[in-house]
Amino acid sequence: MTQNRRAIHDTLNAFVPGDDTWLPGGDGPLAGLTFASKDIFDVVGKVTGGGNPAWAATHPPAEANAWVVQQLLDAGAELAGKTITDELTRGIFGENVHYGTPTNPRAPGRVPGGSSSGSASAVAGELVDFALGSDTGGSVRVPASFCGLYGLRPTHGRIPRGGMLLQAPSYDTIGWFARDPDTFQRVGRVLLASDSEPALPTHLIIAEDAFELAEPETRAALTAAVQGLESMFQAVTTERLSATSLTDWSNQQQILQSREAWEAVREWIDRVNPAFSFEVSDRYVTARSVTDEQVASAQLRREDIVARMNEVFQGGNKVMCLPTTISPAPPRGQPVSLRHEVRLRNSALTSIAGNTGRPQISLPLTQVNGLPVGLSLLGDRGADEALIALARKIG
Amino acid sequence: MTQNRRAIHDTLNAFVPGDDTWLPGGDGPLAGLTFASKDIFDVVGKVTGGGNPAWAATHPPAEANAWVVQQLLDAGAELAGKTITDELTRGIFGENVHYGTPTNPRAPGRVPGGSSSGSASAVAGELVDFALGSDTGGSVRVPASFCGLYGLRPTHGRIPRGGMLLQAPSYDTIGWFARDPDTFQRVGRVLLASDSEPALPTHLIIAEDAFELAEPETRAALTAAVQGLESMFQAVTTERLSATSLTDWSNQQQILQSREAWEAVREWIDRVNPAFSFEVSDRYVTARSVTDEQVASAQLRREDIVARMNEVFQGGNKVMCLPTTISPAPPRGQPVSLRHEVRLRNSALTSIAGNTGRPQISLPLTQVNGLPVGLSLLGDRGADEALIALARKIG
Repeated sequence: MTQNRRAIHDTLNAFVPGDDTWLPGGDGPLAGLTFASKDIFDVVGKVTGGGNPAWAATHPPAEANAWVVQQLLDAGAELAGKTITDELTRGIFGENVHYGTPTNPRAPGRVPGGSSSGSASAVAGELVDFALGSDTGGSVRVPASFCGLYGLRPTHGRIPRGGMLLQAPSYDTIGWFARDPDTFQRVGRVLLASDSEPALPTHLIIAEDAFELAEPETRAALTAAVQGLESMFQAVTTERLSATSLTDWSNQQQILQSREAWEAVREWIDRVNPAFSFEVSDRYVTARSVTDEQVASAQLRREDIVARMNEVFQGGNKVMCLPTTISPAPPRGQPVSLRHEVRLRNSALTSIAGNTGRPQISLPLTQVNGLPVGLSLLGDRGADEALIALARKIG
Repeated sequence: MTQNRRAIHDTLNAFVPGDDTWLPGGDGPLAGLTFASKDIFDVVGKVTGGGNPAWAATHPPAEANAWVVQQLLDAGAELAGKTITDELTRGIFGENVHYGTPTNPRAPGRVPGGSSSGSASAVAGELVDFALGSDTGGSVRVPASFCGLYGLRPTHGRIPRGGMLLQAPSYDTIGWFARDPDTFQRVGRVLLASDSEPALPTHLIIAEDAFELAEPETRAALTAAVQGLESMFQAVTTERLSATSLTDWSNQQQILQSREAWEAVREWIDRVNPAFSFEVSDRYVTARSVTDEQVASAQLRREDIVARMNEVFQGGNKVMCLPTTISPAPPRGQPVSLRHEVRLRNSALTSIAGNTGRPQISLPLTQVNGLPVGLSLLGDRGADEALIALARKIG
């Protein structure tokens, strides 16, 4: 790392403190590109820390690279280091009480978004060309929106999760960030293992109730951005997704995701009594109280949501646009109670793709008062390449 | 500190890591004695850390000594340092995930008891002659029992709490530990500001339902100890305290103590999002959910408990004996869920004094399989000196 990069490095606090992970690049389609990896992906010989010191202290070094890390190395990319994540990926703001909050280079004094906070910070701060993240409830899309980056939540199940610290398996996906759509697509061809040139969507759906969730200035800025895109499509229609409220959809995800997240760590928590931020413990304690009846009911509702979205996308090569987040990045250090409210409001947007396993890409097309905020495109399952190609065409 | 003491010091982990608090002794009734102070009592120029790094980081150095610290210094004792406590005094086992668990010199591999863990460890390890603790739900009595020490929970309100980090004011008291009853009484004369020779109790009450809560071996050992004391009294009677179960009494304390503890820190937690052990956060999250109706009902039940205990003590100079804890110290590092059960069972014993504001002293008279376990004497409000004098007579 050059002297200049080291200085930026120290300013950003994007990488895990004390981490010395580095693996060389080589020949291949990603030759010459550097990347950072969220500290939930195994790197051989290193402990995967998961954003929590107790997790790091109670797990051995990884015996092999995570599938995604190995794919990127095999394609010639250079691994520059491991990035800070919200504790066990439980958060969308990126404020880690143990390792500090990575800087948002595009929005000074604001959170970077999380849980893939350090990855977004490292890319936005130009320390690396791209970075790996994960997205369970918005952890790629939200930091992409807040840091002004391209970021994809792929189709659920599309990218193999071997060697990854899971949070809630029926929602967990692997995504990545880049500053420009060309680099974004180069990485996508490797991670999606696909060189096909997909047919671009011809029909744009505007998710009316999703736009209504955004704060007024954000809604206005994103609506203007959408108007600029309409000429690229043969048809543009407006839909209300939920018969009641999108908050019902996110409440449903909250139940299933919480149950899965608690089951994944309950034995470890009982054994280790880890130090978490109060906010993270609060979410686990709440998760522990989810009942089997709530889970059964939420599973049925999830099927209804999938069916409703299939209905909306029926009969054509469609793509849907929606706000990635309700607003630009909030200030750092807000009270827990306020963050809780803002998180729930953002979840109503992020749970649309989460509940249906659909891919969603956030595009850095818009600013509000100088702060980035993302416009999202959401597609059919398997339409990852089409979303990326569309992002590149919009450019 | 001598070289030898320094070595013991490092082994015990009784003092707050990095703390360099020291204040000289002088002339007075405690001349020549050294003491340690739980890190919830202010020492001028030092931050009162409360067993939690976030608390320490968000509070300024104290501007004056706590009342008790000043009293002891004025009486000639030397302050050797500040001791580790469970986070914000929330715990009875002494396992602090941030600063480590102080050693129990009398029960290797076992917890020291908490929350006045470091104070009990420092006294039992002979680093100091006596130490200050606090007792809200057992935090002096439990470590006294586990470490084989004398330890008093005084009458509620008896010792001024100025400059002390409170947990739940209607239960919080200040107590102390010593290895022998003479030193214990010397300190008591200063802290209770009393030189009177009290009349000793003549009537011993055996709290039958309290003994039934102890594990069989502990109950047998304590029963034998009580039989050895019976000849000191003119009358010995057996009473069942609760018409239902002493667990009802501790459930009632749990509600009031939780509400008070949550109210004391809720604003700070919301602002700071502190890192706590999962166990401690869990207790605060549970405390947050206590309703006003539960509080009102628990306050009425507390009055019933006070009335019942007044009835038991009516008509004579009485003292009650009971197990301090249900067993000797449990092993270190037990699962959170198991600790939770053991804590609740011990609370049924400690809440008798807690709910009634009565003084209770734990005496190191008994061992089970080589591990200390305390026998307690519980008196009328204001009978602190009589309990101490009785402890000295039993010797």
